This record gives sequence, structure tokens and C-alpha cells, in this order.
Amino acid sequence: MEKIVAHGWSAVRSAPAVHDQVDAALAAATSTGWEGLVADQRQYLDDFWSRSDVEVDGDAEIQQAVRFALFHVLQAGARGEARALPAKGLTGPGYDGHCFWDTETFVLPVLTYTAPQAVEQALRWRNSTLPAAQERARQLGLQGSAFPWRTINGSECSGYWPAGTAAFHINADIADAVVRYIRATCDEAFEKDVGLPLLVETARLWRSLGHHDHHGDFHIDGVTGPDEYSAISDDNVYTNLMAQHNLRAAATLVERHPDLAATLGVDDEETAAWRDAATRMTLPYNEELGVHEQSAGFTGHQLWDFAHTQEDQYPLMLHFPYFDLYRKQVVKQADLVLAMCLRGNAFTPEEKARNFAYYEQLTVRDSSLSACGQAVMAAEVGHMRLAYDYLGEAAMMDLSDLEGNTRNGLHIASLAGTWFALVIGFGGMREVDGLVAFSPRLPEQMGRLAFTVQFRGHRLRVDITRTTATYTLLDGESQDILHCDERLTLTSERPESRPIPPIPTGPAPEQPAGRSPARRGRATGHPEA
Amino acid sequence: MEKIVAHGWSAVRSAPAVHDQVDAALAAATSTGWEGLVADQRQYLDDFWSRSDVEVDGDAEIQQAVRFALFHVLQAGARGEARALPAKGLTGPGYDGHCFWDTETFVLPVLTYTAPQAVEQALRWRNSTLPAAQERARQLGLQGSAFPWRTINGSECSGYWPAGTAAFHINADIADAVVRYIRATCDEAFEKDVGLPLLVETARLWRSLGHHDHHGDFHIDGVTGPDEYSAISDDNVYTNLMAQHNLRAAATLVERHPDLAATLGVDDEETAAWRDAATRMTLPYNEELGVHEQSAGFTGHQLWDFAHTQEDQYPLMLHFPYFDLYRKQVVKQADLVLAMCLRGNAFTPEEKARNFAYYEQLTVRDSSLSACGQAVMAAEVGHMRLAYDYLGEAAMMDLSDLEGNTRNGLHIASLAGTWFALVIGFGGMREVDGLVAFSPRLPEQMGRLAFTVQFRGHRLRVDITRTTATYTLLDGESQDILHCDERLTLTSERPESRPIPPIPTGPAPEQPAGRSPARRGRATGHPEA
Repeated sequence: MEKIVAHGWSAVRSAPAVHDQVDAALAAATSTGWEGLVADQRQYLDDFWSRSDVEVDGDAEIQQAVRFALFHVLQAGARGEARALPAKGLTGPGYDGHCFWDTETFVLPVLTYTAPQAVEQALRWRNSTLPAAQERARQLGLQGSAFPWRTINGSECSGYWPAGTAAFHINADIADAVVRYIRATCDEAFEKDVGLPLLVETARLWRSLGHHDHHGDFHIDGVTGPDEYSAISDDNVYTNLMAQHNLRAAATLVERHPDLAATLGVDDEETAAWRDAATRMTLPYNEELGVHEQSAGFTGHQLWDFAHTQEDQYPLMLHFPYFDLYRKQVVKQADLVLAMCLRGNAFTPEEKARNFAYYEQLTVRDSSLSACGQAVMAAEVGHMRLAYDYLGEAAMMDLSDLEGNTRNGLHIASLAGTWFALVIGFGGMREVDGLVAFSPRLPEQMGRLAFTVQFRGHRLRVDITRTTATYTLLDGESQDILHCDERLTLTSERPESRPIPPIPTGPAPEQPAGRSPARRGRATGHPEA
Repeated sequence: MEKIVAHGWSAVRSAPAVHDQVDAALAAATSTGWEGLVADQRQYLDDFWSRSDVEVDGDAEIQQAVRFALFHVLQAGARGEARALPAKGLTGPGYDGHCFWDTETFVLPVLTYTAPQAVEQALRWRNSTLPAAQERARQLGLQGSAFPWRTINGSECSGYWPAGTAAFHINADIADAVVRYIRATCDEAFEKDVGLPLLVETARLWRSLGHHDHHGDFHIDGVTGPDEYSAISDDNVYTNLMAQHNLRAAATLVERHPDLAATLGVDDEETAAWRDAATRMTLPYNEELGVHEQSAGFTGHQLWDFAHTQEDQYPLMLHFPYFDLYRKQVVKQADLVLAMCLRGNAFTPEEKARNFAYYEQLTVRDSSLSACGQAVMAAEVGHMRLAYDYLGEAAMMDLSDLEGNTRNGLHIASLAGTWFALVIGFGGMREVDGLVAFSPRLPEQMGRLAFTVQFRGHRLRVDITRTTATYTLLDGESQDILHCDERLTLTSERPESRPIPPIPTGPAPEQPAGRSPARRGRATGHPEA
């Protein structure tokens, strides 16, 4: 017996029109028949896997997990069709179907390099909500657009502003997703229709939200960064660096499309003000400790009393008042560490190592949005075993139900984080001056890591062992990439292989008592990298 | 026809018992008769006025207002009988009958020097709520007692913690009222029964709320000071100075009553920790501007755009989001300026003048708890005309319904502020090392100011003209006082008169556009003092 089901919905069309659509879908499916439907589906997925598959040797569980993750990330994004991609994708009722910053920061990067048309749709949806974001900015006395912390239709649905509206970084996260998509696709229609208005509107927000002091330094006060155990802080480094990126990218895009920008009312004075704000952006730094402050004054706060916090008192927000969490040094989720992932070129390697070690001892990971960023930075500063353990946490979040709430739906961003940890972390993939760059480094538990990404229409396969990285261009005639700062020109004729240099190791990081990630896999007898 | 009404109530006794009490009151009143009741009432009030009257020459409205104020302050406090004195006294339903810090900070000082038995009752009520405050401290992970921001029965009734619980200063405000009452009355029974436990419990709160950094400096982070247009700040100067006073006073009282303190579990190590915290208390100061910061980082925030704020957009909290108020330099009500009133010896005269001028330009007085403190400091730094105008605002708050909400009940604290402005402001009354001290200074609109205060059981009359102050001891054999730093020994035999030295004038203060206090009285043709 064959049973064919079709569905349709619309927020704008009439019921008869939707009914007709479903009838047509049923008719077409019946005409295609079971074998045809299966073949279509298989072709669709074969195509996706040819652009996205990740292979892991030495850890079958991670191998399974990353494919599970990619499948669900695809499923969440493939048919967004100008609707929000919610935090739980299509998998459950958690978070009431709302969409947050996780979509732009964790999910869209994966899709950018594997299924870019989904990113285009997701950002076209954001763009379609500009009127609500403009209205919200007006309500708050700001210029440009203030995108909502949580939403379905573009209106702010977060009631408690210190942990909602004040998390203005979502605006820069959207801009970052726009810039990444444009660089990875060179989609000029999108750049003009969607990229330009989104970047202009978010740049305007930052310019009006921040201010120059009388020395000229630019500050953004009273905002909340990614770490939800701090709120209403001045000069959050993550927010300021992402805003800086937003302001500069907007100015650059306006230079590329001056006529179009003029229709949005942008003139040279306005872009000059954006660039000036970006140049003078304040990044609090504690000279004595040699680390950046998550926000101004953060490193002067009392340390959380981790030694007297019991295992069953995590997650802390269920057992301690926010008044106490907010005023102490305790980090729910990667914040400064995430800034180092996304704005790596704003830090020296030494700063990254010191900052990573400092914030590791404060970060309790009471959020599923933390482990993947910590995996990436642990790998970058040379703590491969720790990176591997964080990869395990991100990858197994739902398959092992680590937070005990998978029944509410999958953690789509944490699933995306599995790819992050592997490709951005162990593959060391970054985008540098319009080129894809790799600094591969494998943990000893992994014999081989291979993955395919799509960049500017060409598929690129990267095959990494502990000693060698091999790059293969699967489509197109040639493409330049960077391997550990060396520029390579790949052609379709032959792969290029290069040795992997030794990995410098930073200061040994410690986590709060009892909050180290689970040690992954069997003991190997090797000393820890 | 004579109609006699009696009332009775109780939270603990049975209905028949209360009924019996009312019957007895009715019987006694009937036996006393109308003339007797009137005579009792007259005698009660004559006695009050003999200890409290304030005479003002040259401004009949202020003369009326200060007596109106004193009457209502008395009425609010006279029969507190171990119940809270609410913000509206007995006059209306505003604030739902709740009691706030205003009672200890504004109302009790007036009563301390005019009707001290009411203060004793009010603080005995606070002491009776210690179990609830201890429970609250435990909830918050703190030691000692955390008194509620708003309450009727001692439990916290404030739902929104940044503007409620985090305003921990109420604990030091209670301690300040305790210390003032003890110094003004030498009531040793109270000192032991009520003063000691209240000071010990609040000192313990501060010690656990704050922390020493690795240079040894003591910080109190994540709290809200009196200014309700800032919240969740580090090292609020008002809070830190009041906590310092609290910690020191507690250590001193423990030294006086070591055995009793031991029953509360206090030992030498604990008091040493209090003194050390007090000594190393952090007071943020902006060297460049030469002013104290209301809280750490405050003077780096963007200035509120007063020039573009319309008159009908005040009070600001009804027209702008708190997110914006909190992150900018705009002050709802005296905060640092109130710290200078209450902890004057923590500042040099030059600092007071600079601080006053700086915060004047930021203070919009969207609270009735502001004008009196500004009046006091304006007088101290030599802006007599401005002090006089602020006196007018405090005095006429209800008689002229300046905030349009007197129908909800009188602003008892603002009424008390009328006395503050006259006695503390123009009388320059302070308590210095166990002596009452005066630095009288009249505005040119006032020909004479005379008032009586009670200190250590003796009534003292102060009669001030623009050139001379005369001090008369109405009871007792002798009492030492300070007149402008000169020590005088008053005896019951004759008054002492002293000339008033010229008043030094600080930098000319400006208020935000449109927010200067109403200019009081007819133009005199004299240049402003």
C-alpha cells in the first residue's frame, strides 16, 4: 500500500488557495509515484552530502553524530522559505518555536558552506522583518533597526529586557551572517537586496547605541553579551568587536553600492561616523592580569565560589539568584572566547592563549551554546585533548541527552557546533581577505578528518591526517586558499598536500571544580597534548 | 451633641480582646469627656511643638509648610507602635501602605530630634522583623540580615530586583538611623536590645555582600543606590560610604557590649574583618573631572540628551525605557549628593563643591526624595538662593500638589525634607563627635530662622539671623555644642550668641534644561548669592 500525504500553509493566502496547492502537490506526487519520490529525495540528499559530508576516523560515535547533526541542521534550514529558523528546528516545542541569535551565529555558518540557499532564505526572512526592527529601534530611542532577541514574526517576544532586548549583539550576529554569506557566495543580487539594507540598518543601530567619550573612544554601555550570567554591562568585548565588524562591513558595502546606499539615505558623513566609531571601539583589558575583560570591570568582580558549589546546584540559574550571578566572575557560556572564534584577528596568539586559560576557569557551560566555541579555541591554542572533549560534548548533546531536555526538541545550534568543532576547530578553517584558510590540527584520538565545503560555487575537499593536509578542488578550474598562512593555488587537475606544522601549546587551562567536559574515549597511555 | 469614636486593631490578639480594648477606650473617653479629651490633645501637641517648632521670618508660606510638615511627620510616627511607618503615613493609599528606606533616611532623623520615642518604636519594629530579613539573606546566599526594599510585615514585597532587592543601601540606612538615635538619646536599653542586633546583622550583610580584591580594596558590586535611573552598579559611593559607617558603628558597639555581642556570636576576628572592610572601602573617583563617580564607570557614560528632552517627557521613567536611563548619565534623585549630606566628613569642602556642581547638571528630580538633599548641599557649598528654591520645592510638594499625585497621600519623606532643608541646610546642623554642631547660613529671602531640637534629653533653641546665631539651652544645666567649629558651653543661665562667618561659594551649578527648581518669591533686585 502507498499512502501519499501533502501539506501546505500560508500566513497570507486564502484557505481555498492553500487547499488548491495541497491538491496540486498530491496530484504531482501521485503522478511521480513512490519510486520517483524516493529518487528525488535521494538525489537531493546525495547532492547535499556531496557538498557537506564530514568523515572522522577513530571515533565512530563522533562520525555518526556529525552526520546526525548535519542532517538536522539541513532539515531546520532547507525549507525555511522566508520564515524564522527556530532554536529547535522542526524537532520539538522547546522555546515555543522562537528564533534567537543562535541561528545566525551557529546554524547559518554551517549552512553557508554546505547549503547556502538556506542561508539566503533565512536572511531574506530577517530582512523582511526590518519594519518591526525599525519600529523597535524607534521605541528604544535608537536609529536603524533593533532586531528582537526572541521572535517568530519579527516582533520582540522577550519580556525581561536585561536578558532580552539588552542583548543587542544579535544585530551584529545577523550582520556577521550576512557578510559571511556574501563572501562565501558572491551573491550580488542578495548583496544589493538584502545585505545592504541589513548592514546599513544595523550599523545605524550601533552608531546610535554607542557614544564617543571626550577622548574620542567609542563605548557601548548597558548591554548584555552572550554570557547570560552577566547583564547590563559596559563595553562587552564580544558585542564591541562584532559591532566593529558590522560598522566596517556596512561602510565597505556602501562604497561598493553608492547609488543604492543613497536611496537608503546614507551619505559620506554617515559612513565616516561608522568607520570612526569602529576605529575607536573600546576593548577593556586588565593589564595586571594580561587578559581582556569580558566587559568593563568584569575581572574586578568577586570570583564565584566554585569550591563550595555542589554538583547538583548546576545549572546555577536554577539554584542561585541572578543578582548574585550577575555581580560575580562566573560565565554561563563562551562570550569572550566566542569573540576570539569569530573575530580572531583582533587578538594576538598570546592574548588568545591567556584569555582562553583565564575564562576556562570561570565557564560552567550551563548553556549548550558553549562547548563548540571552547572546542574551537582550545584547538587554536593547542589543547587538543580538551578540544576533543568539548567536541564530544557538543556532538553528544542530544544523542546522549546530556542536558536531560532533548524531549523538548534538538539543540540545533549545538548540533551545528559539532561541525564547528570539527571544521573550524580541527580543520582550522577561517576566511581571510576573501580566501578560505585552514590551519589543520588533529587530536591524537582522531586518525583522520575529511570534509567538503562549498566556497564561491566550488566544492573543496580537505583531508587531514596528523601530519598532512590534502586539498582537492572538486569543481571549477582553480581556487586560491591558505594553508597555515601559505597561499596555494588549487586546480581541478590535482590535489595539493602540505605538512602540518607543530602546534604551539598555551598555558594549561583549568575548569571550575566539577565542570570539566567528560573525558572522551579510552585511555591511550599517551601524555595529554 | 458629642460623638466619641474609639478604634482598635491587632494582628495577634483575638477579636473579643480587641473588642474589649475598644470598649475600654470608649469608657475612658466618655469618663474624661470632651473638654478633657481636647485638653489632653492640646497638651500632647503643645509638648511636641515645644520640642520641635520651626519659625521662619520672611516667607509665610514656608512658615505654614514646615508646621504642616512637622504635624504630618508626627502623625505618621507618633503611634507607630511596633508597626512600619509607611511612605504615605496615615494619609492615603499610595504605595499600598508599604514602608521603604525613606522612613529611616528622611523621616526618622526629624523625629530623632523632635519626638524620639517614635524613632524607638519604629526601629523596634525593624528589629522585630529580623527573622524575615535573616531568611531573606539566606535566600540570597548572604550572611546577616537583608531588610526588604518595600514591605508591610517585614517580608520583601518588591518583585523587580534591580530596583528592589539590589537597593541594599536600605540596610545601612537603618543602621544610620540606629546610630543617630543612640547618639541623640543615649538610650542604653535600646542600644542593647535593638541597636546591637541591628548593627551586627547589617554589618554581617555588608561583609558578605562585598569582597576584597587582590590589592586588598573592598568592593560592593552589582547593587542599586538611591538614584533609580541607575541600577546594578559596582561601588556606588552612597552605598559604600553608608556601609562603611555601618561596619564601623557595629564594631564600636560590639566593643561597648562585648558580652552581649558574644551571645550574637560576634568575636574579635569578625569585628576586625568589619573594620578592615570599612578602611579599604572603594570610592570611585574621576581624576580628570575631579569628581566622585556615583558608581564605578558612571562618569564615562553618555550624557542624557537633556537639550532634546521635552518638558512633557518628565518624569522620564514614564516616557523612556529603563534600558536607556540606566546606561546614561542622568540622575533621578540625589544619590552622591545625599551621600555628601549624610557622610559629609568623607569629602573635602572642595570635593563637595565640585561634586555638587557636577551632579546638579544631571539631576532631574523625578522623585520627591531629591530636593531636600539638594537644598542641604546647595546651602553647604554656598548657593543660598538655589537652596532656598529647593526648600520651596520640598515644602510645597503636597500643599501645591507639585507632582499631581497628592490625592494618593502625602509625601511624608518630602515633608520631612522641609525640616531637613531648614535645620540641616540653613541651620547647618550636624552631629560631630557626640556634639550637635551648627554652621548657620540664611538665604537673603529669610530674615530669621529659629528652631528647637532635642538632644540627649535637653531642648536646645537656635535663633539665626543673617549675621548672628543665638543658642539657648531650654532644659538641663549645661551642654556643649559647636558653632562653625567653635566649641561653646551652653548653660541654662544665658543664651550664647556668635557672628555667622561669610559663606564661601562653590562653582555655579546648572540644572538640566527646564529642570531648575521654581524660582521662589518676588524678585529682590539683589544679585544671586
